[in-house]
Amino acid sequence: MRRFLTDRARRAVAASLRGATRPAAPSPAPAPAPAAALSRPSPSAPSAMAAYMARTMSTSAAGTPPVSLDTINPKVLEFKYAVRGEIVTHAQNLEQELHKNPESLPFDEILYCNIGNPHSLGQQPVTFFREVLSLCDHPALLDKSETHALYSSDAIERAWQILEKIPGRATGAYSHSQGVKGLRDEIAAGIAARDGFHASGDNIFLTDGASPAVHMMMQLLIRSEKDGILCPLPQYPLYSASIALHGGSFVPYFLDEEAGWGLEVDELKKQLDEARSKGITVRALVVINPGNPTGQVLAEENQKKIVEFCKNEGLVLLADEVYQENIYVEDKQFHSFKKIARSMGYTDDDLPLVSFQSVSKGYYGECGKRGGYMEVTGFNADVREQIYKVASVNLCSNISGQILSSLIMNPPKVGDESYESFMVERDGIISSLARRAKALEEAFNSLEGITCNKAEGAMYLFPRLHLPQKAIGAAQAAGAAPDAYYALRLLQATGIVVVPGSGFGQAPGTYHFRCTILPQEDKIPAIISRFKEFHEKFMDEFRDVSRDEAPTGTTIESRGD
Amino acid sequence: MRRFLTDRARRAVAASLRGATRPAAPSPAPAPAPAAALSRPSPSAPSAMAAYMARTMSTSAAGTPPVSLDTINPKVLEFKYAVRGEIVTHAQNLEQELHKNPESLPFDEILYCNIGNPHSLGQQPVTFFREVLSLCDHPALLDKSETHALYSSDAIERAWQILEKIPGRATGAYSHSQGVKGLRDEIAAGIAARDGFHASGDNIFLTDGASPAVHMMMQLLIRSEKDGILCPLPQYPLYSASIALHGGSFVPYFLDEEAGWGLEVDELKKQLDEARSKGITVRALVVINPGNPTGQVLAEENQKKIVEFCKNEGLVLLADEVYQENIYVEDKQFHSFKKIARSMGYTDDDLPLVSFQSVSKGYYGECGKRGGYMEVTGFNADVREQIYKVASVNLCSNISGQILSSLIMNPPKVGDESYESFMVERDGIISSLARRAKALEEAFNSLEGITCNKAEGAMYLFPRLHLPQKAIGAAQAAGAAPDAYYALRLLQATGIVVVPGSGFGQAPGTYHFRCTILPQEDKIPAIISRFKEFHEKFMDEFRDVSRDEAPTGTTIESRGD
Repeated sequence: MRRFLTDRARRAVAASLRGATRPAAPSPAPAPAPAAALSRPSPSAPSAMAAYMARTMSTSAAGTPPVSLDTINPKVLEFKYAVRGEIVTHAQNLEQELHKNPESLPFDEILYCNIGNPHSLGQQPVTFFREVLSLCDHPALLDKSETHALYSSDAIERAWQILEKIPGRATGAYSHSQGVKGLRDEIAAGIAARDGFHASGDNIFLTDGASPAVHMMMQLLIRSEKDGILCPLPQYPLYSASIALHGGSFVPYFLDEEAGWGLEVDELKKQLDEARSKGITVRALVVINPGNPTGQVLAEENQKKIVEFCKNEGLVLLADEVYQENIYVEDKQFHSFKKIARSMGYTDDDLPLVSFQSVSKGYYGECGKRGGYMEVTGFNADVREQIYKVASVNLCSNISGQILSSLIMNPPKVGDESYESFMVERDGIISSLARRAKALEEAFNSLEGITCNKAEGAMYLFPRLHLPQKAIGAAQAAGAAPDAYYALRLLQATGIVVVPGSGFGQAPGTYHFRCTILPQEDKIPAIISRFKEFHEKFMDEFRDVSRDEAPTGTTIESRGD
Repeated sequence: MRRFLTDRARRAVAASLRGATRPAAPSPAPAPAPAAALSRPSPSAPSAMAAYMARTMSTSAAGTPPVSLDTINPKVLEFKYAVRGEIVTHAQNLEQELHKNPESLPFDEILYCNIGNPHSLGQQPVTFFREVLSLCDHPALLDKSETHALYSSDAIERAWQILEKIPGRATGAYSHSQGVKGLRDEIAAGIAARDGFHASGDNIFLTDGASPAVHMMMQLLIRSEKDGILCPLPQYPLYSASIALHGGSFVPYFLDEEAGWGLEVDELKKQLDEARSKGITVRALVVINPGNPTGQVLAEENQKKIVEFCKNEGLVLLADEVYQENIYVEDKQFHSFKKIARSMGYTDDDLPLVSFQSVSKGYYGECGKRGGYMEVTGFNADVREQIYKVASVNLCSNISGQILSSLIMNPPKVGDESYESFMVERDGIISSLARRAKALEEAFNSLEGITCNKAEGAMYLFPRLHLPQKAIGAAQAAGAAPDAYYALRLLQATGIVVVPGSGFGQAPGTYHFRCTILPQEDKIPAIISRFKEFHEKFMDEFRDVSRDEAPTGTTIESRGD
């Protein structure tokens, strides 16, 4: 059985990698390492562009396909997005196989731990939020007495309040391109209550999730490959993808794994100076707090230094704060960067600062609603107008997402009919996530060749794989990154989908994977045991044998079988 | 009173134009005219880029604002989006003024005829669609008997069917990046029923409205300013904006106003050859059918020639078909370009063709839901994979929009409980739109100096203004395009918001405005009379007097007062 699995896994690895090789394409860049990102000429640079242009001339004639990999935008070709990359495509194929022939694989379901998508793994929506959305989708219900039998009274009341904020009560109309003014004001009130500092609805841009907001800022800031954005490594690949798509330079700074994925200002300064010495104009610093994929929560003192750094260096601070509600440890607390900056006495005039928030994360996890916003502070009015113009080309974000964004920033309060049941749902989800994070972290740390930092927040663990040399060799022979090889083998053996660390970037010579903490709690023990069984076999198969330990007469090769 | 209004209007024009002038910015390009678009060096061309780079170096030091109009992406600065441009901003300001002091203006409401946003002007949502959305937002309702008192039985049934198509019935989860497979299959079935030709859910990419889909295709196809996209003039400015944002060249072809905004292949060929002679690689042809802003519906024979043209010239056909349900004349019918191509015998191998559809238009007009899709056919698998990758960076479109997209392509059928009431709502909206189009068209044509083609479809009229020379002079003196001047004066006098033709592009020396047909029917007579009164006064103010007609002793100037 083991041999069978191993052989099949090998074939799958080979097949998967064959599928991934495209003869016509320039070889896709790996997750950017500092030197490569800065020195490798971008395909959009003049020389590469000239080559593309030359190719174009021959393909525009009739008879050849109008569009091929040779003639699409090289920026599209170049970027990678591992969270939905090859491993996931392969998992989807396996899922179809499983559907057709349930006996064909050594597991009975695919477990998608590749993406922070809580509802896909069984998390239930928060009732109050869904009641309000349901009523706003069909406002005619509000006039009917039967509605009181189905909806809580505060949900009905809230739906009325929301409709009153929407011009003409028209939930089917395009809103202002920043979002419905009354909803933005409600969000601003929620921010002010959270931070203890003023917030204005005029600074809120509602978006279809946080991703389009990030793209908007990249589009605004990046003029060419000479503009750089400082991003953490490991990073959520939205950033590298968006920077590549907008033709900028990814300027990485390393989080310190030894220090629990700490973010050190010395490292920021070093990378900034290095980028500048290469002629890169660094426009902004991206900070993800709580961290993705690393799960760390920044300390207040650390955040102050980061604010100071941006202020001194003239950088826009792009604060990805979508996991602000996902904190799992007693000794850490979320502080928004705006709160930190204001508490240091910095005003709107001192520092351009953008905070991204999303309805997809937190305890609500409403990924499918595509709601979110960015709070934009510290920009001149004329630049703000340009951000508005970019927003206006897509007219507005979806109104349900806008409504939900206002709800998560203003959930039921003490005294509301739904308050108690809401708190039970909310705390139940958060405390369960904390237990799941802890269980998985301990399980990973109990295994040979794995070390794993604490998940203080967010939805992920990012364990480090200390792979045997022989496993690295096998991966290289298969043409795969070692962690991608491991992840594919894991998928083949267990149905568990994780994302290789190379998709996020990692210190050279280190290997990781990102695994969400999102499977439902009752499934965690089985997942751990499936994982453990796979991992032990993997290590047995590839364990390095030092000269001292190798029994006489046993070759490394024979031990590997 | 008249003089008062006129003076105030003049001041407002001046103030509005002052606000629009930005000293630091390169002068924003007007809606592209053919010669200008092709010969004017784009700001992203090497020389312009070098200038921007030079400016950058001085602003990256600490002490200067990190972001200013001088240091943002020049492509952002350059593009215009008139549908939500200065006139609309000015209207919003007037609306606030009106709110504070209802007596301050000579009208009591702002009438937004600038944008195809039916619900904002009072159109009611289609009940069946909203019932299904409401149920899918709160699936717990489906298990309760009270639900039957509030929702129609086929809406409940449809909600169940939809939930069964969504993995885990999780309407709160990210879907596949192309959209929920079962919903895509449902849309494909709707397309096949519409066209009589096969359609596949694998070719559907669900998006947050049609705009992001257009951006995705531009992002894919445009590599540099040497890549061009053939677009109609007049055009919906999404296209010029998206092409500018992605750094490509807008290659216009003119619709023939004399021939009811006809699209002639000779004109396409002429503009294509001219662009090619200037070194532009034309990648795609955009056709908007029914037309926006022009409202024409293409004849089948014409569509065949267009397909043949794309096939022969190796162009991607980008078919904006979002108004496919908005047809108001007996002798015209909507035919999708895919149906036309298939009926000519062309298969998936012959022609890359993308059709855009949206839930924002049609009789439903659900703009706020941000639903839509593109059907992508005729691309190689490896290019398709790149389109998927671009889609995956934003994870997925919102699920409510996905559901609604599946509903509009499969509305209630004969025998369903909702069928009759659905048909009453649907036909009521469409026939009312047809009456409104006719009434406005006749009103415009009855006025001195206005000619207006028939609105065969879509949601707009695009009347031509034959402005007196003196009005053109007044506009020039105010620094405004003549049609922008007219539109601003109209707004000041009546509260009616239209978009100047210059925002869509028009033949040199011609002036137009776009006006939606969307105000509710009972308001149309009052709108017409307000419009008429304004227009007559405007013409009186500026009427040219020929030498023959001028009474002896009366100068042109004195007549104008």
